[in-house]
Amino acid sequence: MSSVQVTERNPAFVLRAIKDVAFEDREVPKLRDQHEVRVHIAQTGICGSDVHYWQRGRIGDFVLNSPIILGHESSGTVVEVGSQVKNLKVGDRVAIEPGVPCRRCDYCRAGSYNLCNDTIFAATPPWDGTLAKYYTVASDYCYKIPDHMNMEEAAMVEPVSVAVQICKVAEVKANQTVVVFGAGPIGVLSQAVAKASGAKKVIAVDVSQARLDFAKSYAADGTFLPPRAEQGADPVAHSEKIAALIKEKFDLGEGADVVLECTGAEPCIQAGINVARKGATYVQAGMGKENVVFPITTACIRALTIKGSIRYSTGCYPSAVDLVASGKVDVKRLITNRFKFEEAEKAFELVKAAQEGVFKVIIEGVQ
Amino acid sequence: MSSVQVTERNPAFVLRAIKDVAFEDREVPKLRDQHEVRVHIAQTGICGSDVHYWQRGRIGDFVLNSPIILGHESSGTVVEVGSQVKNLKVGDRVAIEPGVPCRRCDYCRAGSYNLCNDTIFAATPPWDGTLAKYYTVASDYCYKIPDHMNMEEAAMVEPVSVAVQICKVAEVKANQTVVVFGAGPIGVLSQAVAKASGAKKVIAVDVSQARLDFAKSYAADGTFLPPRAEQGADPVAHSEKIAALIKEKFDLGEGADVVLECTGAEPCIQAGINVARKGATYVQAGMGKENVVFPITTACIRALTIKGSIRYSTGCYPSAVDLVASGKVDVKRLITNRFKFEEAEKAFELVKAAQEGVFKVIIEGVQ
Amino acid sequence: MSSVQVTERNPAFVLRAIKDVAFEDREVPKLRDQHEVRVHIAQTGICGSDVHYWQRGRIGDFVLNSPIILGHESSGTVVEVGSQVKNLKVGDRVAIEPGVPCRRCDYCRAGSYNLCNDTIFAATPPWDGTLAKYYTVASDYCYKIPDHMNMEEAAMVEPVSVAVQICKVAEVKANQTVVVFGAGPIGVLSQAVAKASGAKKVIAVDVSQARLDFAKSYAADGTFLPPRAEQGADPVAHSEKIAALIKEKFDLGEGADVVLECTGAEPCIQAGINVARKGATYVQAGMGKENVVFPITTACIRALTIKGSIRYSTGCYPSAVDLVASGKVDVKRLITNRFKFEEAEKAFELVKAAQEGVFKVIIEGVQ
Amino acid sequence: MSSVQVTERNPAFVLRAIKDVAFEDREVPKLRDQHEVRVHIAQTGICGSDVHYWQRGRIGDFVLNSPIILGHESSGTVVEVGSQVKNLKVGDRVAIEPGVPCRRCDYCRAGSYNLCNDTIFAATPPWDGTLAKYYTVASDYCYKIPDHMNMEEAAMVEPVSVAVQICKVAEVKANQTVVVFGAGPIGVLSQAVAKASGAKKVIAVDVSQARLDFAKSYAADGTFLPPRAEQGADPVAHSEKIAALIKEKFDLGEGADVVLECTGAEPCIQAGINVARKGATYVQAGMGKENVVFPITTACIRALTIKGSIRYSTGCYPSAVDLVASGKVDVKRLITNRFKFEEAEKAFELVKAAQEGVFKVIIEGVQ
Repeated sequence: MSSVQVTERNPAFVLRAIKDVAFEDREVPKLRDQHEVRVHIAQTGICGSDVHYWQRGRIGDFVLNSPIILGHESSGTVVEVGSQVKNLKVGDRVAIEPGVPCRRCDYCRAGSYNLCNDTIFAATPPWDGTLAKYYTVASDYCYKIPDHMNMEEAAMVEPVSVAVQICKVAEVKANQTVVVFGAGPIGVLSQAVAKASGAKKVIAVDVSQARLDFAKSYAADGTFLPPRAEQGADPVAHSEKIAALIKEKFDLGEGADVVLECTGAEPCIQAGINVARKGATYVQAGMGKENVVFPITTACIRALTIKGSIRYSTGCYPSAVDLVASGKVDVKRLITNRFKFEEAEKAFELVKAAQEGVFKVIIEGVQ
Repeated sequence: MSSVQVTERNPAFVLRAIKDVAFEDREVPKLRDQHEVRVHIAQTGICGSDVHYWQRGRIGDFVLNSPIILGHESSGTVVEVGSQVKNLKVGDRVAIEPGVPCRRCDYCRAGSYNLCNDTIFAATPPWDGTLAKYYTVASDYCYKIPDHMNMEEAAMVEPVSVAVQICKVAEVKANQTVVVFGAGPIGVLSQAVAKASGAKKVIAVDVSQARLDFAKSYAADGTFLPPRAEQGADPVAHSEKIAALIKEKFDLGEGADVVLECTGAEPCIQAGINVARKGATYVQAGMGKENVVFPITTACIRALTIKGSIRYSTGCYPSAVDLVASGKVDVKRLITNRFKFEEAEKAFELVKAAQEGVFKVIIEGVQ
Repeated sequence: MSSVQVTERNPAFVLRAIKDVAFEDREVPKLRDQHEVRVHIAQTGICGSDVHYWQRGRIGDFVLNSPIILGHESSGTVVEVGSQVKNLKVGDRVAIEPGVPCRRCDYCRAGSYNLCNDTIFAATPPWDGTLAKYYTVASDYCYKIPDHMNMEEAAMVEPVSVAVQICKVAEVKANQTVVVFGAGPIGVLSQAVAKASGAKKVIAVDVSQARLDFAKSYAADGTFLPPRAEQGADPVAHSEKIAALIKEKFDLGEGADVVLECTGAEPCIQAGINVARKGATYVQAGMGKENVVFPITTACIRALTIKGSIRYSTGCYPSAVDLVASGKVDVKRLITNRFKFEEAEKAFELVKAAQEGVFKVIIEGVQ
Repeated sequence: MSSVQVTERNPAFVLRAIKDVAFEDREVPKLRDQHEVRVHIAQTGICGSDVHYWQRGRIGDFVLNSPIILGHESSGTVVEVGSQVKNLKVGDRVAIEPGVPCRRCDYCRAGSYNLCNDTIFAATPPWDGTLAKYYTVASDYCYKIPDHMNMEEAAMVEPVSVAVQICKVAEVKANQTVVVFGAGPIGVLSQAVAKASGAKKVIAVDVSQARLDFAKSYAADGTFLPPRAEQGADPVAHSEKIAALIKEKFDLGEGADVVLECTGAEPCIQAGINVARKGATYVQAGMGKENVVFPITTACIRALTIKGSIRYSTGCYPSAVDLVASGKVDVKRLITNRFKFEEAEKAFELVKAAQEGVFKVIIEGVQ
């Protein structure tokens, strides 16, 4: 076990209050127990939720009441290991799963640790995130990466894991047809993971032609840009029309075997239900409005299975590491912008601006 | 094989057009192939859908364009068997499953015959129903009943099968807590089947205290009459309040393991989603408005599995016969009104009136 | 948190070496962490595995290398709680789940904690058991029992949990036919749990008529005493004959939907595979010879699902507590012999003798 | 509908009795009902079971009592369609699924048509096979192939479907490790389908180095040639050693997630159980000795799921067509020997000889 230099400090990018970020010189975090490791952070991707806390200070029940360090999509090198740690040693390069559950509640014991109410999740109030020099975390939530994978790829394991969970919840199987709403990072990764799971035909739907072009070049077999509804058209009726167009264009017969909704947009949800064949599985992964007008009778008559996907569960991170390591999912192509640690606020500003050409923004850690 | 007397006729209760019913003297139906049997109908229950066709002439895509014989919840005695029939002989007393699928489409071949687009379903346009002296049907869709079961019980196997399918779709397991919205025939039967499947605690929710009282005396462990929303209250917020009250009153902790929605009413759907614990299964079995305001974010964050239940599938009828035969489900208590065949219209009028004291109405067949 | 009296001691029934047991005056065990509780043991059932360690010193890879306290089927009263414990308080009466897994390995994180290689299991070398005044254990592995359940019933929750796991692995569903090999404690409890799960027909098979008579009076719908094979008969052919007799006697058609093998005896395993219908589920729960002559081609052609059941997993203990508390499973009838703590060796001798009339033996704790 | 020329005949390759084959001039078969089509056979692969009937006259309960036409792995062109046929027209090129079930038994209705006792299976006594000019079959058991797929590939859809069923039964999922025993046609196809289903690492085990070399060049990530047991070694102990070697060589940790046993050989079955990790799925697909010495205690303690795979079920043929059409599985590489229809017996002799270099033998149909 390496020891912490007394004089060493932990530079951190801190959200102090809504729209108020600053660099702080924190203390080097100590291992909370002997199963933990301390990681020297190498790369950190920025996610919409990070920006959301920065701009609004809350997501659902999680409210910023005191400063937190931002960031949760990170990779790094192990610099300290607790005495009980068996799976890692100092010097190992790892991808960090940002949420560590309580391990004791019924959800954890049943293997649904993504539902644990007491998860310590990086950069979710009141827990500090990973945009600092050091981060401490349970060793079994760090995944060693192979030598040929770089730290940027390892940071990208987080969104890949989100996509793995979506496809796992959907039980995507060989030979299925899959329609994915959304061609942002989670959308295109879900398309890629669906293909890697043996899907026969994956269709990407988005309102941005540029994103669809990227999706087509990335993993999707086909793409669809929904026509706008005519003035005064009934939204649900319009969604039925869109669904019919998708089925026809891509020869889906009665509809898709699987629908992955990665936008949270009401029109996509409506079209998604309508594009599903009888007996199909529809997964809600995107989040937007709390309540939407929903074609419940169609869902009932078609005997759909509708499931929510949230975070990641057992096996997602190992699977995501392998998908990246094996080249089945090329995450490097998703990274459009790179920043130094000192430029973190600039990086956040760029994500906030939400330009079409900005896909995934990543921040290099402190040396 | 018994032969048909040339002179014999087939008295039938026919829906000629919207709100226009009449008794007709039809020809005795012939076996369509050698796998069919002809049944002398003994008892027929009336279902809301029968009344719906009578009053409105359509349900969804099924439109009354020419006269059909009404009725689909029937029992009877086999009077003729095709040469290929192995499971039945003349004189067998049977419960009749009213929908015979095509057996050749992907749904049928996958065991999801309730999703078959080409099902011949009794009293669903353009197919004749069972409110006649005779009905011909595939022999494997007739289920022999034991001697101690009477013909009324056998007719009631149909709604029991609907409840069996709902619990099968929900995968109700031993030791689960189940909240059932609706205490009409399908609601209370779903409660009874859930108990017979080992459920630990079954809660009935309805807006009628009389129905709840019956549910309590029938199979439910507890009942709940939702308070009315205050003037101008947000409906979804009110549904959250109802869900919280149910959880508290019945000590459900984070919520129910399973929710069975048997009303189709928007406030019930909203409360149903909110009363489900994380990772729970919610089944939509009732049908009302085509589209409802739906708490999609809650469904997503709680990682719910939401499934539609429609009709019945493999094993439901045998299971329902056994539940009735074994006394696990007492269907006799559900029958409140009995009519002679000649009084069929009066029986339909009674169901249409929808009085609280009228639960299940049954029509005796022609001798 | 109650404090431990300096002078208090912990009387314990210790297995020092093979066939060498003694009472020892141990120190009162300390909480290993603040999630643990200390329980004052009330009642402890004796299991075949306890006797096995006593007589042979090992089961599989678990070898007695140093003394251990015996006993693992226990109930008691909480006398001390760690500072992090939320689910229990001093004075709570509990059933104790005897195996606490590591919570960190892939099996634990996937919800299969019964497969954890690092489980601390009571009375499995090198871990001490519960036959002492006090036992310390993780609070989430203690289950509060209702006031109307007594401590003997709470101790019996352990074998009920084994049966719950067997039925869970078998996915016993409403309306299934189930053949159970073995009418010892685990056999009859599996029969009772199968019935409580909605099974239509449960058949008990055993070589003891007395045990079959008990099984019939307990939960089984029918019983079968297999005829002996004729001199020189081929064992597998004989097992086919037994299977055919069972199918015929109980009108099982092509065979049982579910087979639960609770003996580990080679002839039962062979008959069990043969009595299963195509597509059935067979669960191996009993353990006997390491290797048996197995009808693999029958298993293949019939497309059976064969699963091993070991210990218990998430939800088994809560389910078992409810089955006992609700009266669905009456465990009091299984207890045939009761001993004082000081008579522990006598109790073990009785279990070892394996008389037909001795079913479940239980030892009262130290006051 | 095309009509049959009165003068046309149906040349057929007939198994008259054990080891007695001959060319016969049969009548052109008539459609048995209006859902059938008549196919002009283009290519037919030879399978071990064809040779088995030729040499021994029976497989299990299927006994050759009267002459049958041989062959069941065929493709062809539709030349006649019944009036009820909707999915095909004259001229369509199709792969033929050789077993048409009764559609009415519980297995068929539940979607397990591979378990139907009344299946009409080509070249299984008493049913004629496809080695003739014409074959009639239910239209839904013919699968249209795309233009770029040739008739040899279409005939090979049959063994691909067997492999699809094996992987479906095993529920092979993305990121799993899979050990496949056997590198014959079904073995290597199972390896290829497992990879196409997203498996992370697929290991082929066989006693032929030449077959392993092919497997490695085809789909397997690694191969293993088991060392021979030493004189007098215990077979089960030897199988444990083999399993340990496989785990070590391929870094499988506690063992494989999935084991596919495609040989039926006793040592492979024993090694297969031992190479599976706790909680793994093992599929028995090969058939050899009826009964084998089986490590049942290991299967129980490891909580394995052991399943038999037989023939193919819903979705296998469409999936197999897509795997071939998309190039994910290259079946052309498997075909080592081609024969004219007139050389059928020579083709059978070659398969019977079982030389290492002979992989898949195919017979061209009558023009």
